[in-house]
Amino acid sequence: MIQVGIIMGSNSDWPVMQHAAQFLQQFGIEYEARVVSAHRTPDLMFEYAETARERGIKAIIAGAGGAAHLPGMVAAKTTVPVLGVPVPSKYLRGEDSLLSIVQMPKGVPVATFAIGEAGAANAALFAVAILACDNPELAQKLAEFRTAQTQTVLAMDLPAAE
Amino acid sequence: MIQVGIIMGSNSDWPVMQHAAQFLQQFGIEYEARVVSAHRTPDLMFEYAETARERGIKAIIAGAGGAAHLPGMVAAKTTVPVLGVPVPSKYLRGEDSLLSIVQMPKGVPVATFAIGEAGAANAALFAVAILACDNPELAQKLAEFRTAQTQTVLAMDLPAAE
Amino acid sequence: MIQVGIIMGSNSDWPVMQHAAQFLQQFGIEYEARVVSAHRTPDLMFEYAETARERGIKAIIAGAGGAAHLPGMVAAKTTVPVLGVPVPSKYLRGEDSLLSIVQMPKGVPVATFAIGEAGAANAALFAVAILACDNPELAQKLAEFRTAQTQTVLAMDLPAAE
Amino acid sequence: MIQVGIIMGSNSDWPVMQHAAQFLQQFGIEYEARVVSAHRTPDLMFEYAETARERGIKAIIAGAGGAAHLPGMVAAKTTVPVLGVPVPSKYLRGEDSLLSIVQMPKGVPVATFAIGEAGAANAALFAVAILACDNPELAQKLAEFRTAQTQTVLAMDLPAAE
Amino acid sequence: MIQVGIIMGSNSDWPVMQHAAQFLQQFGIEYEARVVSAHRTPDLMFEYAETARERGIKAIIAGAGGAAHLPGMVAAKTTVPVLGVPVPSKYLRGEDSLLSIVQMPKGVPVATFAIGEAGAANAALFAVAILACDNPELAQKLAEFRTAQTQTVLAMDLPAAE
Amino acid sequence: MIQVGIIMGSNSDWPVMQHAAQFLQQFGIEYEARVVSAHRTPDLMFEYAETARERGIKAIIAGAGGAAHLPGMVAAKTTVPVLGVPVPSKYLRGEDSLLSIVQMPKGVPVATFAIGEAGAANAALFAVAILACDNPELAQKLAEFRTAQTQTVLAMDLPAAE
Amino acid sequence: MIQVGIIMGSNSDWPVMQHAAQFLQQFGIEYEARVVSAHRTPDLMFEYAETARERGIKAIIAGAGGAAHLPGMVAAKTTVPVLGVPVPSKYLRGEDSLLSIVQMPKGVPVATFAIGEAGAANAALFAVAILACDNPELAQKLAEFRTAQTQTVLAMDLPAAE
Amino acid sequence: MIQVGIIMGSNSDWPVMQHAAQFLQQFGIEYEARVVSAHRTPDLMFEYAETARERGIKAIIAGAGGAAHLPGMVAAKTTVPVLGVPVPSKYLRGEDSLLSIVQMPKGVPVATFAIGEAGAANAALFAVAILACDNPELAQKLAEFRTAQTQTVLAMDLPAAE
Repeated sequence: MIQVGIIMGSNSDWPVMQHAAQFLQQFGIEYEARVVSAHRTPDLMFEYAETARERGIKAIIAGAGGAAHLPGMVAAKTTVPVLGVPVPSKYLRGEDSLLSIVQMPKGVPVATFAIGEAGAANAALFAVAILACDNPELAQKLAEFRTAQTQTVLAMDLPAAE
Repeated sequence: MIQVGIIMGSNSDWPVMQHAAQFLQQFGIEYEARVVSAHRTPDLMFEYAETARERGIKAIIAGAGGAAHLPGMVAAKTTVPVLGVPVPSKYLRGEDSLLSIVQMPKGVPVATFAIGEAGAANAALFAVAILACDNPELAQKLAEFRTAQTQTVLAMDLPAAE
Repeated sequence: MIQVGIIMGSNSDWPVMQHAAQFLQQFGIEYEARVVSAHRTPDLMFEYAETARERGIKAIIAGAGGAAHLPGMVAAKTTVPVLGVPVPSKYLRGEDSLLSIVQMPKGVPVATFAIGEAGAANAALFAVAILACDNPELAQKLAEFRTAQTQTVLAMDLPAAE
Repeated sequence: MIQVGIIMGSNSDWPVMQHAAQFLQQFGIEYEARVVSAHRTPDLMFEYAETARERGIKAIIAGAGGAAHLPGMVAAKTTVPVLGVPVPSKYLRGEDSLLSIVQMPKGVPVATFAIGEAGAANAALFAVAILACDNPELAQKLAEFRTAQTQTVLAMDLPAAE
Repeated sequence: MIQVGIIMGSNSDWPVMQHAAQFLQQFGIEYEARVVSAHRTPDLMFEYAETARERGIKAIIAGAGGAAHLPGMVAAKTTVPVLGVPVPSKYLRGEDSLLSIVQMPKGVPVATFAIGEAGAANAALFAVAILACDNPELAQKLAEFRTAQTQTVLAMDLPAAE
Repeated sequence: MIQVGIIMGSNSDWPVMQHAAQFLQQFGIEYEARVVSAHRTPDLMFEYAETARERGIKAIIAGAGGAAHLPGMVAAKTTVPVLGVPVPSKYLRGEDSLLSIVQMPKGVPVATFAIGEAGAANAALFAVAILACDNPELAQKLAEFRTAQTQTVLAMDLPAAE
Repeated sequence: MIQVGIIMGSNSDWPVMQHAAQFLQQFGIEYEARVVSAHRTPDLMFEYAETARERGIKAIIAGAGGAAHLPGMVAAKTTVPVLGVPVPSKYLRGEDSLLSIVQMPKGVPVATFAIGEAGAANAALFAVAILACDNPELAQKLAEFRTAQTQTVLAMDLPAAE
Repeated sequence: MIQVGIIMGSNSDWPVMQHAAQFLQQFGIEYEARVVSAHRTPDLMFEYAETARERGIKAIIAGAGGAAHLPGMVAAKTTVPVLGVPVPSKYLRGEDSLLSIVQMPKGVPVATFAIGEAGAANAALFAVAILACDNPELAQKLAEFRTAQTQTVLAMDLPAAE
């Protein structure tokens, strides 16, 4: 069953958002990835949010750029945890996206991650952490991922200074 | 008949947004002022936007602060002109509000005005200008307002330097 | 008859501002596009603004970058609605343009749109919305544009994650 | 059993962070609130993070200001979900806190919320949403909270314009 | 004969701009101080700029806040040196004023000074320096001012640390 | 006799600063262009500033990037007008340069121009305006430059929208 | 013998800079505190920097605000370690001070600390750390200071949520 | 014996950080360069910091980007001087890195340098200055480096303006 939904305002956001998809795949989490635009498909967005819980979705990863309203509006229509990813914008490099997503008013939270690829990847890892709350096997996998990541860094060599 | 709707996310936005109301009153424009929150009353927001045109609303002035989604989401649900007013936020003084409102993606415009009181006032004056398009009497009133404003400045004295 | 004027400070702004022209064409709105510089042709600018109303112009789309004074100064000389487009600047990417346009003082409004191409396009769409106020046919076209836009997004596919 | 830990770098952060505590209380979530400083009690911080999972902690809400390292460093030492709250700083009003918390590198996520009181409150609500994943009663409470919140907004009146 | 003109968009700018007046007085420079608004008295502004040279004005100090168009537009209409002073704005503290004044396009210069009182004072001192170019007595006065200023700093004591 | 000095912290600033040189050449102003670094040749900088007036220098155009101390420190050592040009920096694109130059304290003015090429060009034009104060022929040339500039803009055509 | 010099551009910087003095006192370091202004006493500044090493100064703590040139210019004239403290400025709250101090070009370093009181205090602690390099007793004192600081945090209680 | 440690969060930081290594080599300082990640190898980081003093390390140069926690956390675990280098980040160009490093709270200092290559180089030069405190020969070398640097600038020629 699909446990995580990845949504984004346009297929042009995919190069960033696929980093979320990759990590979910790596952890064996079933997910769906869809284009849902706050401004161009508002009714679909509301329907998506409203039906997420009953469809078994445990976390929604929403990426958006510029006046990035998708994560916050989805959060307004569901109590399923919403994870927001600021997609870099053409001129302001995601500063606008970040503020539009993170500065939510009291009462409707959006968990926000870093601008761009790192944020998309970390939103996925955070979704895994949520799912791991009542899934010891997944928690174990997450711990192993961290250990492997540490090993990778420990193995890094530096070339001589040029 | 009500021609302009003023909406805002909370009654705490009223000290800013009433500057819009005052100018509409001054020009004799019938308006309504309501609390409509993107995040806390999303269904009301959609209903408000969807029914605006048939109710005869010619312009919607929407004020919001922080992750300011109200103007953009209303614009997503109506083709009535939406005028956005960035309400100053507690810590970022409206920089977040401004970017959240003005950086709309191609296809769904929001006309954005200055942060705070000046922006609210100017949104109202802009609504008057829209209504004046096919109302010569109102256009005349607007021209007279400008003339009076010029006179006020011309009459300003400066005290001696201290 | 020409209903919308598109003006900009230099022909180097055209790659951005032509996005406004394209949308006006698409909606069958007659428009003119001219170079009018606040700083280098100030008298032309004033004359343009002063005669706009009598020439039948219903909206002026003004694009400018850096210390972007064109939209605000045109607005100071006419009560025709002025729509400002912040053109990206070389080093500050349009942050200066945006603030120079949007932060108008109380009394002289400029409706401001996003930095760059999206802003130019949306200014045109907003001009269409103004013209549609007393033109049901145009309002219908605008609604159809929105519907088509929604369909485009609904039809978007995402490739598999790499 | 304590399910949520609220930690902060100094008791001077409490006026902000108590907004998290209040919401957890309201939902009947057992929590602890402690001063744990990344820079002044680094060993305590690591110990706190390392033992969180085995102590049954399901989410850690970490508030910090300025060079705000607490949320990210705790996240580096546990796979329990970490929710970061940017506490406003004296001169930069939390812009530094926000960037220090949200811009985490790929591999170690911190879910970030708004600057100040709203962020603290929303971190708590998000923790509730995580706990509600496998707790239908809590999910129900959260839904009721949202409904009540909507009612509050619907009941808001606006005074007449001054 | 009046040699320096101090202009500003509103008498509310006077608390800042009087710092320019004070320095001109101190150096015995004849000056005038007037309210000239780019947006509310555009014709007066153009007339002021156009007649400045023939009236014997050697430098124009122009203060403005927000979308601060006054210095740049005056500079567009005269070749008399224009000195711009960014007046602090309510929400953005003069960042908007600074960028609106300093980022002039190639061809029409505005000499820009610091935000607020220091900028107003320094614009006056700079006007004195321009006038001193062909006035050795004034140059001498300016040198003496600098010497006295140095003496003041040299005489500063520091209290004991509390 | 050399009337204007152009100085910069490194020959890597020349691609920007040569725009000042070009305009001075165009107006027939004798100038010198030298590398003078605030941080690497501080004694040369002081000597340059101290001897400028007696050498007949009427204006100093100083370009610097990053922690741009050259214009302000030269101004501290001479009463000759100093014109500062913020050179774009590698990572912050000249925002640091601009603030380091423009935010001078009360008592020591630096006339600041736009970031990059436009600022260098305008500093030269402003130096011409200073020299034109007591040189009617040069004032005439400057007026003609402006007229020609206006003609150039008036002759600009726009291509058809693509 | 005086080992550390604390300098600042004005006695108005003392409320911030005395936090440096207090820490040096606490560690029994002999220091001097003087007003030395980059812009108003440039010769004193150079003399101070040039003679620092021979006078036995081991570290110079320099505080400055706005276009903060003092730390960088002192560093240009000595190889004694210079520690820069960005003093908060009136309108930009020290963002200008920070960039003016930290963005030094390759070849002349300034060690920069946080804006305001925390930065002044930390500059003093860093000076202690430098002096402790070849002074085991002082190193021991510094370690004890850290331990005491840790104890203070460990002893902090949090009041109940209001 | 190794006197300076250069650490960084990833080998992708090496192109920036090797500028520190090059200067240490040039001054004949023995150093080590290692990958130590605050978030991915937190235990190694603590161990590195805890053992630095006993291993004879006199200064630690720590480079990090984004939510740059490495310098501050190392400083929290040692009293050896820590020099922080903000590594440019992908979207925010090091503004996040700078604030995350420089805005340390009172009690735990990190000496911060410019964003990128210049900062890395200057951190190394500053480390040399610390080591030179009780090493007259090294102090002499540093003075000679400065003299040579001055000569390089004095020898710079400018090409003719194009």
